[in-house]
Amino acid sequence: MTDILQLLTQTPLDENTLRSQFAEMNEADIAEILEYLDDEQSIAAFRLLSDDLAADVFSYISPDKQQMLVEVLSDDEVEGIMEELPIDDMVDFIEDVPEDVGKYVLDQVSSEKSTMVDRLLDYPDDSAGSLMTTEIVELSLSMTVKDALETIRTSGVDKETIYTCYVIDEDRKLIGVITADTLVRAGLTQPIAGIMDTNVISANAADDQEELTNQFRKYDLIAMPVVNRGGQLVGIVTVDDILRVIAEETTEDVEKMVGIRNTTDEPYMRTGVLRHAKNRITWLLILMLTAAITGAIISTFEDSLAVLPVLVAFIPMLMGAGGNAGAQSTTVVIRGMALGEIVIKDVVQVIWRETRIAIVCGIVLGLANYARIWLMHDGDGTLALVVSLSLAITLVVAKSIGCTLPILAKKMRIDPATMAAPIITTIVDCTALIVFFSIARVAFNI
Amino acid sequence: MTDILQLLTQTPLDENTLRSQFAEMNEADIAEILEYLDDEQSIAAFRLLSDDLAADVFSYISPDKQQMLVEVLSDDEVEGIMEELPIDDMVDFIEDVPEDVGKYVLDQVSSEKSTMVDRLLDYPDDSAGSLMTTEIVELSLSMTVKDALETIRTSGVDKETIYTCYVIDEDRKLIGVITADTLVRAGLTQPIAGIMDTNVISANAADDQEELTNQFRKYDLIAMPVVNRGGQLVGIVTVDDILRVIAEETTEDVEKMVGIRNTTDEPYMRTGVLRHAKNRITWLLILMLTAAITGAIISTFEDSLAVLPVLVAFIPMLMGAGGNAGAQSTTVVIRGMALGEIVIKDVVQVIWRETRIAIVCGIVLGLANYARIWLMHDGDGTLALVVSLSLAITLVVAKSIGCTLPILAKKMRIDPATMAAPIITTIVDCTALIVFFSIARVAFNI
Repeated sequence: MTDILQLLTQTPLDENTLRSQFAEMNEADIAEILEYLDDEQSIAAFRLLSDDLAADVFSYISPDKQQMLVEVLSDDEVEGIMEELPIDDMVDFIEDVPEDVGKYVLDQVSSEKSTMVDRLLDYPDDSAGSLMTTEIVELSLSMTVKDALETIRTSGVDKETIYTCYVIDEDRKLIGVITADTLVRAGLTQPIAGIMDTNVISANAADDQEELTNQFRKYDLIAMPVVNRGGQLVGIVTVDDILRVIAEETTEDVEKMVGIRNTTDEPYMRTGVLRHAKNRITWLLILMLTAAITGAIISTFEDSLAVLPVLVAFIPMLMGAGGNAGAQSTTVVIRGMALGEIVIKDVVQVIWRETRIAIVCGIVLGLANYARIWLMHDGDGTLALVVSLSLAITLVVAKSIGCTLPILAKKMRIDPATMAAPIITTIVDCTALIVFFSIARVAFNI
Repeated sequence: MTDILQLLTQTPLDENTLRSQFAEMNEADIAEILEYLDDEQSIAAFRLLSDDLAADVFSYISPDKQQMLVEVLSDDEVEGIMEELPIDDMVDFIEDVPEDVGKYVLDQVSSEKSTMVDRLLDYPDDSAGSLMTTEIVELSLSMTVKDALETIRTSGVDKETIYTCYVIDEDRKLIGVITADTLVRAGLTQPIAGIMDTNVISANAADDQEELTNQFRKYDLIAMPVVNRGGQLVGIVTVDDILRVIAEETTEDVEKMVGIRNTTDEPYMRTGVLRHAKNRITWLLILMLTAAITGAIISTFEDSLAVLPVLVAFIPMLMGAGGNAGAQSTTVVIRGMALGEIVIKDVVQVIWRETRIAIVCGIVLGLANYARIWLMHDGDGTLALVVSLSLAITLVVAKSIGCTLPILAKKMRIDPATMAAPIITTIVDCTALIVFFSIARVAFNI
């Protein structure tokens, strides 16, 4: 890679050497190199690629760079790339760039292609429809293996979608699936009706993409056909798109759990400092302001604290333990829902399970805490009891709220991850303080 | 599914109806049904499956259930399943069960198969070698397309590994890859040397599985050949295994971030309460005990608090904001490393980036906080300044520690996620308190 970078930064460019080097490289690697170069260099490099390689590389580069290239290249060059670009990659691109750039690109391609792209753009973001491509090998029921192989040979369909072929009836209804290797192994005169698999796992165009990822994992799929409400075949989602969706959805989930809004799909290093700060600051601000509530609670109990200042020293521990315990429950539930292991109707079972887990944790932590305080505070049993009891109660409250909120959020069609750790921390903090001071007041009669 | 569950729970079983129903179902769905049944019912149901369907279903069921079946079924039945089971699924099974069960199973299969399994078991957990299967279609350089298709037809290799065939030379060195659809489209007399792709993306058997997942995503792969140190082809990893690895690794990562040790790959609902509690309690205990440090710090400043009790009310806000800000940095860095977007040598750049992000967040939060305190505490500018300054400093410390620890952990070959949010919270809590009280002492001269 250093070699080619060197070649690319010298002037004048050794175009012939570069062309032959590019021809031997993987398109994802070329795309990675283009990301390293400045605009001018990457344009020059991109222009050295043959038409179909250029389209392949284009589908791997970042939206910003894609947009830059489209704006700089000639109409003819854009047309060349776009006609070669798979439908789903073109849809991804148009979704990522400003409207006028998308419109310009659609104007460059055949009306047939732009109609197909337009239709896909109509599907909601994050749906199977927006993820699929329409370039499929369709076989009809009456074909033999020989006909099928001939259809594949002449279809010119992009290779990624050819491992599985779909059989449709005269109404375009999906009725079977047959893989390339079955065709290869079968006798040429066999009717495909006899060797196709009629037990097809398919998605509806409106299905959520997260659901799809779980289906791919459950059934070990490399591709999944997508049907419309009438059961007619409209497209196909391939596993490479699923890998990307999983990465994106997971990043979104874990970031939301710590209060980061994900406004970009760009990698960490390529996102600006201000953008990063903006993504994180909203929640930090909200949490800081809601922390005024915990402050107010403490102020309410200022008299008790004046009598027994030692109580203050336990506040961080109680709030910390509660926050951590709640975050644990939230995390397992959000993760379980993402994997399809926990569904909304499990809510009662989950709360019951988490409550029991919390009771076990509460007893163990309470005892350990009792021992520690008793030892470090000259055998003050009442103090040890007050803190330990508060701790145990806080844990139970934290875990039951922590597991309920994400499920509730999902039920209300809010992303569960946005209801995550930070919010729960605030609720739990307040509970911990109120429980602690209330018990202390009674126990010490203050 | 309700229908078949009903059929499975009535006595006597309507075996013929069940057999024909099973034959029409997907193996993953049958496996899911077996998980719902009690041991006796699932054994009876399993026995109704044909030999190769039984093996397919077996590879989808949970390790506990697999073990139960192997212990109950006859030697002949076990042999029947194991001979049909793909090598990699057999390896997974043996890795998951007690040693004696594994040994028993290896005794049931042909010595050829048990040797292959033994060899795979030697690879370290989480390596490409332990993930791969050895059932590959190997083509030699001198073949024509016709020879290649004939080799596929007669190989009897499991379908999942047949979409891509690998070309090796006389020393078994991997020199090219050719996909099933290229073969189908090519003329029968063409030599495969001319149409194979020599730019093969391969893994070494010792490579870490997480690295593999990033390669699959980067290059849109559905399979990846694995070579030994000599460059000889030893196996193949398929994308369905990668989907499972991603799910497992992500769950492990997010759970570790909140201090949950993951001792089981079982889904949430199928893990016992005590196991759940045990997984979570270690970290809660450690954090509770380290919270004694924050307690001790507060006690040190008890005199200052006695003079100015209002300070207490700001402790939760400072610690909370610091904890959240630190967790944000930790999370983005851990996620970035998991996706291969951040590597160890980026450490200085990452710290510099996070510090600048922290300064931006610190200024905005500090100003907002200043305004809030000034308004709510009758224009007490000194108090507002002390708290806001402490807040800004805490944010910078939190974010720079938060981003450094995971990278440091990776460098020291500890899993970055174990260094995560909970530990950072403790460090940040202490810093926040010391900074706050120190500034307050100077400002108020107490």
